[in-house]
Amino acid sequence: MSVTDELLANAERYAETFDKGDLPLPPARGVAVLACMDARLNPYGLLGLTEGDAHVIRNAGGVVTADERRSLAISQRLLGTREIILIHHTDCGMLTFTDDDFKRQIQAEVGAKPDWAAEAFPDLEEDVLQSISRIRNDPFIPHTDSVRGFVYEVETGRLREVKS
Amino acid sequence: MSVTDELLANAERYAETFDKGDLPLPPARGVAVLACMDARLNPYGLLGLTEGDAHVIRNAGGVVTADERRSLAISQRLLGTREIILIHHTDCGMLTFTDDDFKRQIQAEVGAKPDWAAEAFPDLEEDVLQSISRIRNDPFIPHTDSVRGFVYEVETGRLREVKS
Repeated sequence: MSVTDELLANAERYAETFDKGDLPLPPARGVAVLACMDARLNPYGLLGLTEGDAHVIRNAGGVVTADERRSLAISQRLLGTREIILIHHTDCGMLTFTDDDFKRQIQAEVGAKPDWAAEAFPDLEEDVLQSISRIRNDPFIPHTDSVRGFVYEVETGRLREVKS
Repeated sequence: MSVTDELLANAERYAETFDKGDLPLPPARGVAVLACMDARLNPYGLLGLTEGDAHVIRNAGGVVTADERRSLAISQRLLGTREIILIHHTDCGMLTFTDDDFKRQIQAEVGAKPDWAAEAFPDLEEDVLQSISRIRNDPFIPHTDSVRGFVYEVETGRLREVKS
């Protein structure tokens, strides 16, 4: 039995007691959270979110690339969100390598380099700030008055704000 | 008080009872979930995931673009995941517009078109299958034996598999 099959069994149990079938499409809290994909970072538990509350966008590092700007533009323009919360975290895998080394390893194995930046970073706080800057500099995301960035501490469960 | 401030108060409560400070970086279940950012889709509740279990990647539509391929390559190559679960859902915002119309509206307002595809789709099942295909055709994601795609029904809480 694969892990996927085990998680599907959990999904059957979720459906058995499901009572949230009439929630509207737009997020009730009007917020989009952009966080790292890290397994230890659970935005629902951390921020007290439940079904219907917020858009949750996640990727390796919680970084801002074209696809996150796409998702944020759709979130704000079509579904009415106005606030953005960015979350990086301590002990992140993105702190453990460089783009050049990672892409060279892939090239050695596959014979070609990926056509994307790996977006590794050596400094958490600095990358939170430049992620905020990428959003503020995007002409297609209309609402950037409330873009706040945080570091989640996987050791303590605390969320601390990064201010420039 | 902004919504962000309210969620920060929740985060303080989360830290007060936090007891998961020693989880390892690699996901315990060896799985990466790629799902839509939709507020009604809670991968933790649905799949029975808890802190430490799985990478969770999310964007508008749960689609596969360069950034999701980047995240999946990092997930598998650096952090040992082997299975991929894709989740689209009923009543998705991506079913309600076309790329051309959305980008034309933005151009009318901002004066320029975004340099990204909006990735809207008219058919859920078809987009799940082509998302699987994008992953299988990527040379930089090493493990594609277990890539399974699903539609989550926001009306019933059920998850149904899409098979080609």
